[in-house]
Amino acid sequence: MKKFIGDPQHVVRDALVGLEKSAEQVRVDHEHRIVYRAHPKPEGRVALVSGGGSGHEPLHAGFVGEGMLDAACAGEMFTSPTPDQVAEATATADRGAGVLHIVKNYTGDVMNFEMAAELAGSVRVETVVTEDDVAVEDSTFTAGRRGVGVTVLLEKIAGAAAEEGHDLDAVAALARRVAAGGRSLGIALTSGTVPSVGKPTFDLPDDEMEVGIGIHGEPGRRRVPLAPAPEVARMLVEPILDDLDMTGAPVIAMLNGMGATPLIELQLMYGEVAPLLERAGVTVARTLVGNYITSLDMAGCSLTLLRADDEILRLWDAPVNTAGLRWGA
Amino acid sequence: MKKFIGDPQHVVRDALVGLEKSAEQVRVDHEHRIVYRAHPKPEGRVALVSGGGSGHEPLHAGFVGEGMLDAACAGEMFTSPTPDQVAEATATADRGAGVLHIVKNYTGDVMNFEMAAELAGSVRVETVVTEDDVAVEDSTFTAGRRGVGVTVLLEKIAGAAAEEGHDLDAVAALARRVAAGGRSLGIALTSGTVPSVGKPTFDLPDDEMEVGIGIHGEPGRRRVPLAPAPEVARMLVEPILDDLDMTGAPVIAMLNGMGATPLIELQLMYGEVAPLLERAGVTVARTLVGNYITSLDMAGCSLTLLRADDEILRLWDAPVNTAGLRWGA
Repeated sequence: MKKFIGDPQHVVRDALVGLEKSAEQVRVDHEHRIVYRAHPKPEGRVALVSGGGSGHEPLHAGFVGEGMLDAACAGEMFTSPTPDQVAEATATADRGAGVLHIVKNYTGDVMNFEMAAELAGSVRVETVVTEDDVAVEDSTFTAGRRGVGVTVLLEKIAGAAAEEGHDLDAVAALARRVAAGGRSLGIALTSGTVPSVGKPTFDLPDDEMEVGIGIHGEPGRRRVPLAPAPEVARMLVEPILDDLDMTGAPVIAMLNGMGATPLIELQLMYGEVAPLLERAGVTVARTLVGNYITSLDMAGCSLTLLRADDEILRLWDAPVNTAGLRWGA
Repeated sequence: MKKFIGDPQHVVRDALVGLEKSAEQVRVDHEHRIVYRAHPKPEGRVALVSGGGSGHEPLHAGFVGEGMLDAACAGEMFTSPTPDQVAEATATADRGAGVLHIVKNYTGDVMNFEMAAELAGSVRVETVVTEDDVAVEDSTFTAGRRGVGVTVLLEKIAGAAAEEGHDLDAVAALARRVAAGGRSLGIALTSGTVPSVGKPTFDLPDDEMEVGIGIHGEPGRRRVPLAPAPEVARMLVEPILDDLDMTGAPVIAMLNGMGATPLIELQLMYGEVAPLLERAGVTVARTLVGNYITSLDMAGCSLTLLRADDEILRLWDAPVNTAGLRWGA
């Protein structure tokens, strides 16, 4: 295991120190492992709280800031945050207008955010669960589909709506619309390594890749021989378009790196994905290429397509100022 | 070699297709492998042209756009762009006020940009050469010091000055001031692999790392046993501070990933670097943590410190809208 770490048991703690030192947008409650905005939004606005296991940076803590999240709970590596932790974040982030919980569909996350909503007492909480991974139903840690890339897009879009002053019901309805319109698929070339484990999560032969990989290394649909980028692009695009019609609406496309794949390969992959989408009649209105929801040092990528509309595009374009996503602010 | 590529001989060509499809900020002259702004700046403003071997993305093409570069020439992998290519970019980017060439100090780059300046004929050209790598003098491809991370900061700062309407002499003088105030050092955990070669550029045992690595895998100062992050931080910080006094001025700090190191490790490393700088009396005014000047799929990181001043900070904060660096626009 070759990593820039100190004590393998304390990587999350140590990374939060560096995040706080480097990102002016946030402050960190180190005791509870909660990342808050450095400058909380005004009273009377809906707050957005997310979180999950660590190892997917910049998700979620890197998306705390103006126009996106109000707080993010960092679980241990690939481990759900605790109900107490989420309840604390919910109570602190609330500005009197209620809190939207944004939860990726993993059994532990769903359960712990649910308990946190109960613990939050007088704070009104609505919840949106993302479940956009078309690869498999009922994975290792999940009933139903796993929540992956659309979470990034949802946090941006719902964050912009909350910033504009929409009420909790409206922000939650919008978030559910985004969750319903998003689909993703991932492909791994190598496994990531959890520092406290010290060896790769799974074995993948040098001449194979895994189609439909989960962001914690959960098994995908199948292992196939390494293929050139044009074929990989088809393996990413076709299952998504088979699952949801993406024509007749503007689409937001994210080609995401899993952590150890360099940008030049992501750019190249998007160059293969784009013409497939064009040929299928899909109109890509906005694009994001880079590392946004990762799996430690896994080499691989995922494609997320979101069936959008004019309102969603407007909210997408609104200013955002976070460590992981920033424009117009 | 596990990579998302098609033909290993055409990775640069194919990646430029994806960059153009995904980055609204640019258009690509595919014949000459030149990336231009989609919306050129007004006549009468100084233009900035850079470029170099590919494999360092987002540098340079990802920094083309409002507030930064006007054109970037993409050489083959780790290979200088040709004089003709740079001359073409220079002539096209010129808005009648002259062109600043931003060149990393590698023998081929320096020579080819020099020839291009001669070929550019009536276009007035000034040149700034970055040489910020404190690791070694006279490396494999270099006389003097290698140009690395400060190039990113310089392209941002000089780009903002050009946008404000300063003339070529003023922009060039500022750029030279930035180049003179920047120092960097890199550490590799693994070698990157050039696709057309198909195997790692150098061998590095599982229990060693290379201190002072070059961005093309050129040898560094020494190989040392793998060390925990606090020790690695000292190996990065001390040689830089030994080389240039960074106290008594605001400093811009960049902790840069080499391509295959995930963000959580970069955040963690910055958490170790920051207190060392504090203890040394260095005041960090701005921070950038992420992948900005990479070496294909090398695992590793580099630290760049720039001795700034109020004007440089103001230009750093000015709006920028590129695929690789974006804020306030």
